[in-house]
Amino acid sequence: MESINVELGQRSYPIYIGENLLEQATLLNKHIKNSKCAVITNPTVKELYWSSLEKVFDEPPLLITLEDGEQHKNLDTLNIIFTQLLENFFDRKSTLIALGGGVIGDMTGFAAACYQRGIDFIQIPTTLLSQVDSSVGGKTAVNHPLGKNMVGAFHQPIAVISDTSSLKTLPSRELSAGLAEVIKYGFINDIDFLHWLEKNMPDLLSLDNKAMTYAIKKSCEIKADIVARDETEQSVRALLNLGHTFGHAIETFTEYKTYLHGECVGIGMVMAAEFSHRLNLISKSDCELSKKIIASANLPTQPPADMSKDIFIELMMRDKKTLNNNIRLVLLEKLGGAFVSSDYDPDILANYLDQVHQR
Amino acid sequence: MESINVELGQRSYPIYIGENLLEQATLLNKHIKNSKCAVITNPTVKELYWSSLEKVFDEPPLLITLEDGEQHKNLDTLNIIFTQLLENFFDRKSTLIALGGGVIGDMTGFAAACYQRGIDFIQIPTTLLSQVDSSVGGKTAVNHPLGKNMVGAFHQPIAVISDTSSLKTLPSRELSAGLAEVIKYGFINDIDFLHWLEKNMPDLLSLDNKAMTYAIKKSCEIKADIVARDETEQSVRALLNLGHTFGHAIETFTEYKTYLHGECVGIGMVMAAEFSHRLNLISKSDCELSKKIIASANLPTQPPADMSKDIFIELMMRDKKTLNNNIRLVLLEKLGGAFVSSDYDPDILANYLDQVHQR
Repeated sequence: MESINVELGQRSYPIYIGENLLEQATLLNKHIKNSKCAVITNPTVKELYWSSLEKVFDEPPLLITLEDGEQHKNLDTLNIIFTQLLENFFDRKSTLIALGGGVIGDMTGFAAACYQRGIDFIQIPTTLLSQVDSSVGGKTAVNHPLGKNMVGAFHQPIAVISDTSSLKTLPSRELSAGLAEVIKYGFINDIDFLHWLEKNMPDLLSLDNKAMTYAIKKSCEIKADIVARDETEQSVRALLNLGHTFGHAIETFTEYKTYLHGECVGIGMVMAAEFSHRLNLISKSDCELSKKIIASANLPTQPPADMSKDIFIELMMRDKKTLNNNIRLVLLEKLGGAFVSSDYDPDILANYLDQVHQR
Repeated sequence: MESINVELGQRSYPIYIGENLLEQATLLNKHIKNSKCAVITNPTVKELYWSSLEKVFDEPPLLITLEDGEQHKNLDTLNIIFTQLLENFFDRKSTLIALGGGVIGDMTGFAAACYQRGIDFIQIPTTLLSQVDSSVGGKTAVNHPLGKNMVGAFHQPIAVISDTSSLKTLPSRELSAGLAEVIKYGFINDIDFLHWLEKNMPDLLSLDNKAMTYAIKKSCEIKADIVARDETEQSVRALLNLGHTFGHAIETFTEYKTYLHGECVGIGMVMAAEFSHRLNLISKSDCELSKKIIASANLPTQPPADMSKDIFIELMMRDKKTLNNNIRLVLLEKLGGAFVSSDYDPDILANYLDQVHQR
């Protein structure tokens, strides 16, 4: 088992990464206070892991099973959690455990942030995407019909348990979606990791445990370091949104139904690379290499054909990073070097978005 | 104009108290960043103050008018706020302004806590209750059908502007409800203030400005001091809940419709005093004096006749202070001295609740 510590003063917490961690009772139990505990999951994940996780608890926890999918990540589903916690007299010392992917983690985390103004929660991410991204850093949220993750809180978990064995049951599309975020860390600030990914992508796609554990740990280290420097995204944390402004617009346009989040991030990163090239920030060959690495993870690289420039711009204006009507984008100044900018010619963006379907 | 500072490090903020503050443009404008701004209010308050407040802004703010009353303090109403903010492209540097009583303040504060994971907000409390209590200290929340303020956040305002002139239009029941919280501060830790209140209650009820300004400032000082020592209610802040555990049970039982919050706190404080006397903590005469002061503010002192012991206990079990099924109550060891305890004989509580209608 590998472990990393996210350094946030009083809110610091460990991330455990390894095989068969779900079955290790002490790992979970040492973080639960002497009070009520609820496991929040969805029917698919419950079917796969509940029988083994259940054995870990001394007292049976409350099990809350939510409907599966990003379209259920909203205030109504959140209220279902609150109702169950209140009906079972959960108090301020209670602990919530998120067992599932990013949707379950985001909702459980936000429920923990708000229930009685804040209780503890533990992340047990079961998808690659949530193991390398959403379970680390304390961003929690639900969606609003007018935008993704628009209602939420910064609320750090007290522990993250990433069991690599759970990736064996992951559909291949979800594995690729997770790899999009792994690749993102290379683009942001680690050219060596990017080259490692270029070389080891086949091993990752075939779930080679050594390669996968390295990729998860490396991803968590890069993210934990950025989060420790900027917990509430006042500055450097915004780099983690590489590909996300384009990606969120695609998710909103397709109503969270057509693509997985990581797939949209994959398309968004290709667009960020292409737009960076349009702005003469990176070379054509670096832009091509970016697309090649993303495509090698079996990710889509093209936005929906019916998504016009005007739709892109309207949806991106709603992005949380947009300030004073100025669309802020994470761009690449080199492979392994990202920066945030709203200081570009908007006509070049409009022109790029007009032509994006013609490549 | 008087002013106090709530000392919370980076989250410190001023409270301004005085006549006609709503009309002072600089007071408000110096706290608003260079971005979008929304005033959130209800139809009653809008009718009274919007025309004078509107003049203060250089750019017209977004006006969001919510339905009036505690029964609308829920996630659905919160979502109305989010929709309007998103439709108007509000960003992370936007500011919300709560213009109204505690319901408006709690909802605006919680909306600000969650919108895009947290934006600034300013409190302009227009009721006595909100000026002395809910606008100070950063507790924000909405209700759930199973309990009051069960979903919320700690989110401090960046400024509080308490215009005493707005009390002139306050219905007398609401004035008394506010006085309940003022009296509470005396009970908690200031016997001199309690005797001052005993003497000056007629002046407060007739809105004598000097007496009222003193009572508001004193209340805010006591609360600000307690909040500064314990922002997230790990210890001493719980004392501010004197009368609230009984009171919240009454509010939930009557579905927030029969009584005002402060009226329930008034009844709850009488019950806390009586139960403290049952436990031999305070004398019969101190218990009688407590009731006399509360009654002198024209507050009810008797819980609903159809509220049985069993109903009280079931509802109090859901209180946020209840831990491990142990009902924690704020009790009086003397007038001007409160403490939190769950270390009492539950039979004495049951016995008291059985007989509470017989006094």
